[in-house]
Parts: sequence; C-alpha cells; structure tokens
Amino acid sequence: MAEGNDSKRQGTGDLEHPRTIEWLGDRVRLIDQTCLPGRLVRKEITDYRELAESIRRLEVRGAPAIGVAGAMGLALAGLESEAGDFEELLRDVKEAAEHLAGTRPTAVNLRWAVDRVLRSATSEAGGDPEALRAALVDEALALTEEDRELSRSIGRHGAALLSDGDTVLTHCNAGGLATAEYGTALAVVYAAVEDGKTISVFADETRPLLQGARLTAWELGERGIDVTLLVDSAAASAMSRGWIDKVIVGADRIAANGDVANKIGTMPLALSARRFDVPFYVAAPFSTLDAGLASGSEIPIEERSPEEVTTFGGVCTAPEGVRVYNPAFDVTPAGLVSAIITDSGVFRPPYGETLFAGGRGGRA
Amino acid sequence: MAEGNDSKRQGTGDLEHPRTIEWLGDRVRLIDQTCLPGRLVRKEITDYRELAESIRRLEVRGAPAIGVAGAMGLALAGLESEAGDFEELLRDVKEAAEHLAGTRPTAVNLRWAVDRVLRSATSEAGGDPEALRAALVDEALALTEEDRELSRSIGRHGAALLSDGDTVLTHCNAGGLATAEYGTALAVVYAAVEDGKTISVFADETRPLLQGARLTAWELGERGIDVTLLVDSAAASAMSRGWIDKVIVGADRIAANGDVANKIGTMPLALSARRFDVPFYVAAPFSTLDAGLASGSEIPIEERSPEEVTTFGGVCTAPEGVRVYNPAFDVTPAGLVSAIITDSGVFRPPYGETLFAGGRGGRA
Repeated sequence: MAEGNDSKRQGTGDLEHPRTIEWLGDRVRLIDQTCLPGRLVRKEITDYRELAESIRRLEVRGAPAIGVAGAMGLALAGLESEAGDFEELLRDVKEAAEHLAGTRPTAVNLRWAVDRVLRSATSEAGGDPEALRAALVDEALALTEEDRELSRSIGRHGAALLSDGDTVLTHCNAGGLATAEYGTALAVVYAAVEDGKTISVFADETRPLLQGARLTAWELGERGIDVTLLVDSAAASAMSRGWIDKVIVGADRIAANGDVANKIGTMPLALSARRFDVPFYVAAPFSTLDAGLASGSEIPIEERSPEEVTTFGGVCTAPEGVRVYNPAFDVTPAGLVSAIITDSGVFRPPYGETLFAGGRGGRA
Repeated sequence: MAEGNDSKRQGTGDLEHPRTIEWLGDRVRLIDQTCLPGRLVRKEITDYRELAESIRRLEVRGAPAIGVAGAMGLALAGLESEAGDFEELLRDVKEAAEHLAGTRPTAVNLRWAVDRVLRSATSEAGGDPEALRAALVDEALALTEEDRELSRSIGRHGAALLSDGDTVLTHCNAGGLATAEYGTALAVVYAAVEDGKTISVFADETRPLLQGARLTAWELGERGIDVTLLVDSAAASAMSRGWIDKVIVGADRIAANGDVANKIGTMPLALSARRFDVPFYVAAPFSTLDAGLASGSEIPIEERSPEEVTTFGGVCTAPEGVRVYNPAFDVTPAGLVSAIITDSGVFRPPYGETLFAGGRGGRA
C-alpha cells in the first residue's frame, strides 16, 4: 500500500468540514467538484444562470447539495431582478425556478427544494417586492440549515453503531460533498470521529464516474481521516481478509419493504458483506423512504450514456460502437441490509409497520 | 444500450481467429495489445531482445501467450547468433533465455516455456550448431501447437455446457489474446459458436487495467460475436435481471481442494452467480491445478502498483498520496464453482480424488 495521510489525522473533537456550498450575503460560494481531487477550487457566483450551469456541469452534485444550490439560485434571482413591483419580480423568480429545476430533470430533490422556497417566500412576502427578496434568502438559508441539521442527525444516530478502531467500507460519495457539508453515510463516520473514536475508511473508487476516488477519498483526507482506495471489485477481497468491520452506503430511494436503490455496485457489496458477516448499513434522510413503492422492483433504474464506460478523459478504452449496459443504480434486497440509519433514528428489519410509523415517509 | 456489432455476426462453422503470436519462418509476428482496441497493429520482430521488450511492455500478455513468445524468442536467438561452434551458440542462447525469462519474473509459465525449449533442443541437437538452431525453432513451434491444441481441447470440453441462445458473462481477458489464438474461458464460447450455437457475451471491463473493455470486447467483436460491455459492479445487476445464463472465467492457479485464484473481482462475481442461480464455470489448462496447495488460502496474492488505480492515461484521478489496496487476484472458494473446465475434461465438486486422479496436476 502507498503512503497514507496519517500526518493529518485529527484527535478527538470537531472536524473541520469544508462547506460544499454556502451563502455569502449577496452571492453563493461553492466547491467546483469537477476540479477535485486535483485542485480545490471555490467559485463565487452572483448570477442564477451561472449557478444553474454549475448544477448542469456537476460542479455541484449529490441530491441534497443540488437542492440547496437550487434554493440559493432563487435567492440570487430575487436580488438580481430589477423589478420594482411584486408581480414583475415574482415572474422573474418563477422563470428562474423553471430554469434551475430544468438543469437536472430527474433530480426530484432539486425540484422539491426550488418549489418549497418559492412557495414559502411568496406566502410570507405579503405582496411586497423587498419582502419577497428577503424571504427568498431566508428560506434558502433555512433549507440549507435543515440540510446541515439532518446530516448531523443521521451522523448522531449512526455513530452509536461504530466502535473505536473500526474500519468502514463505503461506496460512491455519500459525504459532505453530496450535501451542504456533512453527508449521509460519511456523516456516520464523521460523528463517530467527533465522538473521539478512531475510524478508518476503505473507499470503493466507484466506476464509471469514480466518485469514490475523486470525492470520497479527497474529503476524508481533508478531514484527516485514514482512507484506503480500492477498485470496486476488490471490496470482497478486503472483507475476506477480515479488514472491514462495517459497510455504510447512502441511498437514492428506499421502498416500503426496505429494498434500497443506490449507486450501481451496492448490491454485490451487500452480498459480499453477508458472505463475510460484515454488518451492512444504509444511511439516508428519512425523506428517501418512499411509502408509495411496495418493493425495490418498482424502482425505475436509470440507464446512462455508454460513453461513461467506453471513454476516459476523452480517450476511447473500448472498441468503437460496442454495446454497453450502464445502469446508474441497483437494488439491494431488504434482507441484506442490517439497518437503515436516518435522521429519525435507526430501523432494523423486519421493518413491519415501524419504517413508516405514523404515516410518514415519502417526500411531500 | 449503444448499437452492437450484429452485422459482423458469423453463421455456423469455424470462426476466424486472429493469431496473437506466430512464427513466419525467420521472424515473429504478434498483435501489439497495447494498441487495442484503437488500432490493430501487427509487429514483425527478428531480434530476441526486441521480443523481450514486447513482453516487458505487455504488447503480448497472458500466461500461455508469453510462454509462446519466450519460446519463439529462443528460436530467434539461435538464428541471430553468428556462433560457428556448438558451445558458443549454446552460450548465446542461454544468455537469451535469461534475458527473456527475466522480463516478467513472476510469470511461471514464461520461465517454464523457455527452460523446456532450451532443454529439449539441446538434447536433440547432438552437439551440432545447425541442428541446435533447427531444434529451437521446432521446439518453439511444437509448444505453440500444443498451446493451440490445449485451448481447442478446453473449448470442446466446455462447449457441451452451453446451450443455443445462452448469454455468458466473463471477466478480464481469458481469450485468444491471452494464448496463441483460442483462449480458455472464451475458447468455450468459440467452440460453442463453431458448433452452430448462438452465444452472446457480457464482458466485465475489469478494473484497474480494463482487459475486458480493451481486449475481450475487441476479440469477440472481431469474431462477430455479440458482446455487451459493463462495469464490474454492474454484473450482479445483469444477473438479477435474468440476462445471464452462465458465468465463465479463467484461472491463474487452482488449489487441490478446488479453490480458484483469478483476476480480482472473480470472487464477488461467484457470490452474485450463487445468489441468482447462475452456473459459475472456471476454464483453465489442467496445468493450472496445483496439487501442492491444499487450499486457496495458501495461494500468494500479488499486490500491484497504486498508480494502476490512482491514475488513468496519465491523469491523476485520486488525491495525491492516497493509500491504495490493489490486489491482482482474489480466491473463489471451491463451493461457489459449478465446474472446472480443463483440457483433460470437466470436473465437478465435490472433487475428492478426481481432480488429481493419477497423480497429475501441477506444472512440471
């Protein structure tokens, strides 16, 4: 193994969490994730169209983070508009909302965040344009703060599952870079470290887009947490050697029976974890639970462009025209999941009524 | 999925198998695999040092293929030497043998092939330098022909396991490019197609070195066989959809109890195959069986350079200095293997005494 980054390891206490995206009074500052891990570039943006372009180019990515970006984009749109009366301003802001939400049409969270900020701010403004401008900023900040609190809450609930000295294997990037700052799967690691536990992480590189290599390895290193990178298919080997104490992954959608849709490669990871008796945890906002889906077989699986697999950095790595199967997600059967860690607590199978107790679940 | 290559699909009858490496009377011609899949470049080589360099640069790779290359390199060395007397020629050839065998020090097969050609030719030559030159060529050709016959034999034994219309998933490149022309795992596919069966193949890209994307997809396409490329971690997803009828992989070493060491990622593939009731076959020369190893836990696993994982085409894709776990192989427990297909027949567990009946097994 190559040299690690132990020199940066922190002791107990709070870690420094770089803010993926933040509001600076009249502008947005975000980490351009397309430059990672080579360079840490922070961009300042004052035009909502430029922010929309950042979302489209994946400079900011991860469902919670792009929800926050969309909300801040609306706040920018309010400040940018020169409209003097309420209706005119509202028209400008609604146009911005469509523009922002259209950048990643399949990202349910983005549309949800933009709609929520628009609706709340409009109802609070009472017909006054300056009040609308202020309310858009306030709502965007409230949503950002909620995202931070939600991640912290996932972290607190999950941290109890980790023991001092544990090595955690994770897949893709369910970390601070996918949220405003703290993450979902990695929030559990961060909270455990902030509790004073020593935790090491094995990060799957996560083909085809290498979010694990580019983003997870970077953000763990930044926080001084010991990280080892491996190709996705080597995870089972690491487990077979007894090196992995727990697997923690994020989730894109969770069905009512507990089946989990997440980044492609999650399901074989769960099979390996079962084989080698490694607990397999899923960490996600409670809003990821979709009570409207009876099981994972109802979750639509997006197939992405063949070029993600056949080219790399512009270089063709496969025969021209070869057929490609490139699903973005797979479905892990509930029976392979040891527990689901949410901001509302930790749920263990058999879930029965507990997972959706009180009629909750599913994003409004 | 992108467009396939059905237009090139052949009917029944013999496929055209490009020769990975061949002897042209006074020189060697080989496919430079470092140019695939972009360009099909054939190099002609008259100097054994140049051939050694080709082996070192992985222009020719795959244990059987580099054994053949080493043997042909000795034949070249005999022709190149200007020595007039036997002892002088033998000294030149022995020097070449060391040079060739040293190019890939861990490749047992290369050393074995070079030693065998040198020993046989020397004993046949009877002290005559011209007879030694001729015997070196004859022995290299005999070894090449044996490799072809061995691959054909694996194909014949395995083809009976495939049904018309089957889709086979494979990992890495255990194909014609790894042998003189026909392969091991892919030999089974080729033999079935030559028997008139329609077979489709899903090829894992095989990180980190992408032998599946670069080589397997290419050689199947060249032979007009329908091929679909996927990232390694999507194989389980394809199986869960019921698309895969059989998995066939090669092997680097097989222990006496039937445990199989093969390219990293083989073991999780076997776990997925078991989960989705897909037969999992290993195809390899009988000489891959190592009677001296009681179980897979005794097989040493080579760890390779971190750069294979952290860079791609010269571009850094992970944080500088990140620790990397990069094992070249994993071990698939015998219990997950449906059958082992060899040139000596098909063996099914429990192997008991059958796998090494007659005291065979292990390369001399």
